[in-house]
Parts: sequence; structure tokens; C-alpha cells
Amino acid sequence: MTTIKNSALHSPAIRWHGDRLELLDQRLLPTQSLWLNYSNAADTADAIRNMVVRGAPAIGITAAYGVVLAARALGHQANRSALQPAFDVLANSRPTAVNLFWALQRMAKLCESGDGNALEGQALIEKLNSEAMQIHADDQAMNHRLASFGVPLLPADKQVYTHCNTGALATGGHGTALGIIRSAWAAQRITGVVAGETRPWMQGARLTSWELLQDNIPVTLVVDSAAGHVFKSGNIGAVIVGADRITANGDAANKIGTYNLAVLARYHNIPFIVAAPLSTIDPALASGDSIDIEERSSNEVRCIQGVTIAPENVPVFNPAFDVTPAELISAIVTEHGVIERPDTVKMATHLALAGTR
Amino acid sequence: MTTIKNSALHSPAIRWHGDRLELLDQRLLPTQSLWLNYSNAADTADAIRNMVVRGAPAIGITAAYGVVLAARALGHQANRSALQPAFDVLANSRPTAVNLFWALQRMAKLCESGDGNALEGQALIEKLNSEAMQIHADDQAMNHRLASFGVPLLPADKQVYTHCNTGALATGGHGTALGIIRSAWAAQRITGVVAGETRPWMQGARLTSWELLQDNIPVTLVVDSAAGHVFKSGNIGAVIVGADRITANGDAANKIGTYNLAVLARYHNIPFIVAAPLSTIDPALASGDSIDIEERSSNEVRCIQGVTIAPENVPVFNPAFDVTPAELISAIVTEHGVIERPDTVKMATHLALAGTR
Repeated sequence: MTTIKNSALHSPAIRWHGDRLELLDQRLLPTQSLWLNYSNAADTADAIRNMVVRGAPAIGITAAYGVVLAARALGHQANRSALQPAFDVLANSRPTAVNLFWALQRMAKLCESGDGNALEGQALIEKLNSEAMQIHADDQAMNHRLASFGVPLLPADKQVYTHCNTGALATGGHGTALGIIRSAWAAQRITGVVAGETRPWMQGARLTSWELLQDNIPVTLVVDSAAGHVFKSGNIGAVIVGADRITANGDAANKIGTYNLAVLARYHNIPFIVAAPLSTIDPALASGDSIDIEERSSNEVRCIQGVTIAPENVPVFNPAFDVTPAELISAIVTEHGVIERPDTVKMATHLALAGTR
Repeated sequence: MTTIKNSALHSPAIRWHGDRLELLDQRLLPTQSLWLNYSNAADTADAIRNMVVRGAPAIGITAAYGVVLAARALGHQANRSALQPAFDVLANSRPTAVNLFWALQRMAKLCESGDGNALEGQALIEKLNSEAMQIHADDQAMNHRLASFGVPLLPADKQVYTHCNTGALATGGHGTALGIIRSAWAAQRITGVVAGETRPWMQGARLTSWELLQDNIPVTLVVDSAAGHVFKSGNIGAVIVGADRITANGDAANKIGTYNLAVLARYHNIPFIVAAPLSTIDPALASGDSIDIEERSSNEVRCIQGVTIAPENVPVFNPAFDVTPAELISAIVTEHGVIERPDTVKMATHLALAGTR
């Protein structure tokens, strides 16, 4: 196997070594920092499914590297049809993750050539490798662009409330919503962060507070149900969250609990900002009503890291996401700018302008 | 020792056998149902202190039985002054529990006779035994009266959403908010219950879902932040919660997360009902602004049953309660009736009418 130039690219949760992928096992944070190694697509898909890696952009990057690993395993037999099982197993790992499909499509496109001269073997492997690394690097740069648009939206000298984890761990680096927060703190625009713990997976407690502590950004952790009480205090200048999918009209699917925060923010007249890459917007979906909400295992609610906290036989409803309607969103921020009070026309205009850049 | 007639009274967490008290160790629920035996006042006080028993009414009942156990141990020497150490040890078990002092005062009053013929020995023991059982039975009856007023407020053929634990475990039996739910289910008025897990102590997950399963009432457990998503479904007919303190204007302090639910219920046009004994109303407090919110240990948020879920050094804000303003409350239900859309005048009228009954 030929060595590929510039074959290593590292970010806080994803390390690409050219012939293997290392992922920080985010399930073990904040008590352990364990890096796991992946050398084929099926294991990489399992890592996505089992939430070793999480966050839409990080999932997309991981899936892209999964395709490279599959191609490397095929060697000179690598071609579009031989890669199909790898594309399938990766696509089936997290049904709600639009970045996953976007990244896989970008990788698939490389294998196909309009003029009938489709790449194969080593040439294809090298091309796929560059493309995956480009997806990774693009995401980092995109986060910084997005942050530059988001910072001015935050009221000065107040705290920001955030949910789940949208930081360097969830992306190629820096973060989306948390990237804005990071940049706003660096610009001395905000006084600190309140992080909701984000049951059931505790991404706020385990990951966001961990990331912010690493960067010495003042953070206070609260249970999710304390949000209303915190908002009432008057100290919160904005709520800022990520999105897993945004529909043509500006509705946003995001981690369960986001919709609660949007309703509470509206009641308290606090700006509610959604930060997400342009790729999160799916113009094929008219509204959030068309989004299937993934339901996850009951055990995520009944047990916490092996400790049972509910009767074993109690029925559980465990939706992974909820949908926040556009009318509750003050602004959507992408790497191409800001959509204030989003609606179908503004979303289409934003996409059209972004497409011409 | 003479056998006392009707000496046994059992409820789901408290079993009185005349000569000993059994308490269900609520700290071990839902994984273990362990009944502990108590035959003296000091051990009974420890059970209260260590939260074997919880819920203000249940604590009062337990303390009353503790006095009976002390009197039995004294036998023919039982009198007011000989019982003083028992009253002291019980009163010091949970210094902030109002029901505890109320129950102990009621027991102390029995030992004192205005005409100088204070009861002693076996006669006093029998009288104290009857009084403790009466406190226990009165609480059960009060819960049922409260429930009878609450049931008609629930929209028919829908589910009810509840928070924390306000059931048989916290009271002499039946429960307040959960008592209404229990009665509404028995009357085939509701189709089931959605219980919020109630971080950080998980009373919804550990206790409410356990109680409802015991009674074969359909219950679905959700994380607290799923409430908005659940409300949006249109299946929830009412939100019903308890209260720790209600002020003169109808503001209600209750477990953290209650205020979130009230705002979400209003946004979704779902009735928001507060169920609590009349004794919860404190007319000396003008509004919820006068209520000091207890802040509890950071470790309640950072750890769950010994498992660390957040960085050890992350600052935490852990308010035990929040205040729901009267304008978000559709109705307050006591054992004396219903106060719809509570305000200062209606609250005063309710208290005045209750006092004349």
C-alpha cells in the first residue's frame, strides 16, 4: 500500500493516520480519555451507532474516513460497486444524521465519473483519502467562519445557555454553537456559559463542561429542568444550540430538550439561536413534520453508566431528538451568514446565495 | 402489655403493627423492596434523618409512631416528662420538616391535661397509639378527599403528565397529585401517566414509576427535557404536580423543573394543576418572591448513585425548588376543594371557607 502524502489530520476527538482512524471514546468522558482504533468500515459504523463518536459533523467526517478504510481493504479491487456494502453499513449507522448522508454522497461522487472513466484501485483510494481529509479540514474552517457570524448576535456582558455538545468533540474542531461561544468568550463579549446536563446521555455534563473547563471558559452546570428557573434570573443573554437537521421552512431537529428551551426562551424574551453548517439544511423536507424522530433504547433512561435508576420493567419513551418550529427561532447561523426569523423564503435565499459563493 | 384493639394500620410505605413500626426503605427503590423494623424512638428518628422514609406527611406519621414506641418502652412509667427525650430526638431528625413538628405537637398535647389529670402508663399508651393511627388515617382520608376534587379537572381519555413523587410513598397512602391520578385511573377517566424522571434525585424514575407499576396503572417514563415534545403530541390532557409551599397569591414552590412544565403547559394549552394539602398554603408569604430557594450539594448533579457524570471541578447550580407564578396555574386543589386560576382573593376565600368547616 502506497503511503499517502499529508496523511495525518488530528482534531480533539478524531485522529486520522492515513491507514487507521482513532476516535476518542466520548462515552467515557469526563472520567477517562480513551482513544479507540478503527481499520474497517463495519467497525467504524459501529462506533457511530454506539456513540463512540457523536455530533453530526463528526459523524460525517468519521463516515468519510470509514469509506477510505473500506477502499484500502479492497486495495486494487476498490471501485464504486465493491464499496457499496461499506456505503450501506455506514449509511445505516445513524438514521437521523443528515451530515452522514452528505459526507457519504460526497465520497460516492468521487467513485463515479461522468465520462465512463471511473476511478479504481490505488488512484481511487488516494482520491477518497484526500476527500475525507478535505471534509475534515473544511469542517474546521467552516466552524470558524460560522462563529464569526454568530458572535455579534450574542447580547454583550451576559451568560449564554447551551444544550448538548456542539463543540470541538462534535465537529472537526472548534464547534458550531460552542464554537460561537468559544469565539465570543475570546472576544470578551460574554461573561460565561450555563450548560444543561442533557439527559439521557449527559453530553452537557460530560462533554460541554469538560471542553469549556479545558479552555478555561467559565461554565456552570445545571439539570435540564432548571432552565426555566435560570432564565427567570435575567442573567441569560441568549440560548444557543446546534441542529441535526433543518428543514426548508427553518424548523430545526436537535437533541431532545431543545424544543423545551425554545419555548422557555420565548416566554422569557431571550434570543434563541441555532448554529449549524449549511449541510444541515435539507431543502427536500418542507417542515419538521416530515422528520422521523429516532427513538432510542429504554435502557438509556433506566440506567446511567450501569446504575439502575428506574424499575426494569417500566415502559420508557426515549426520543433522541425533538423539532423546534421556525417561529421560535430568533436566528439560524451557518458558515454563510445569518438567517434572522427564518421562514421558507429566507431559507431558500440563504441556500441560493451560499450556492453562488 | 395489653393488646390494643385495631392495632394494625398499613399503607404502601408505613406498616404499624401496634408494637413495632415497619418502614419501606425508599433509598433502595426501585431495585429492592426492603422493610425495616423499628421498636424505639431513637431508631425511628434515625430512619427519618437517613431518609428511609421521605415526603412531609409520611415523616409526620412516622414521628407519631415513634412517640408510641417510646411510651410502650416506658410502660407504666410513661408520662409527659418521661417522654421528653423521645420528643426531642424525633424533633431533631429533620429540622425543616413542618409536618414533623405538627405531628409531634399533636401527640404532646395528648399527654397534657388542662385539669391536672394528665394521662399516664397504659392509659396514655393507648391514647397515643390511637392518636398516631388517627394521624395516619386522617392523612389517607385527606388524600382521598383531595383526589375527589381533583379528578373532575382532568380531561377524559387522555394521559396525565406528572413530576417528582407525590404518591402513597410520600404520604399516609394514596398521595396528593398522584392520589388524583390514582383515583382518575380507578374511575377510568384517564388512559395513563407520563412521569418525568425528575433530576437530580430521580423521584419520578425511582418512586413514581415504581408506585404506578405496583398498581398496574400504565406509566411511561421520560427524561424531564422530553416534556415539550410529549406535550406537542396532543396526548396529554393535564399536567399535575404537588407543592412544597403555596403563597397568599397562589404562587407555588415545588421540585425544580415544575416551572419549566408550567411554561410548557401554557404554550401547549394544557391545564396545569397543583395538588397539595391546605397546610401547604402559607398566607404569611405574599408571593413566591419571598421564598428562599434551597440550593443543594453540587454532587447531586455531578454524581448519580456514586457514578460520576461530570468533571469533578465543574461549578454546579443546584436549586432544589423553583417557583411557578399563579398566572401559570390553572387550578390549585386541596382537601377542601378547587381554586381555579388562583389569585390573592380566591386563596383567602378558600382558606376562610376551609377554616369554617
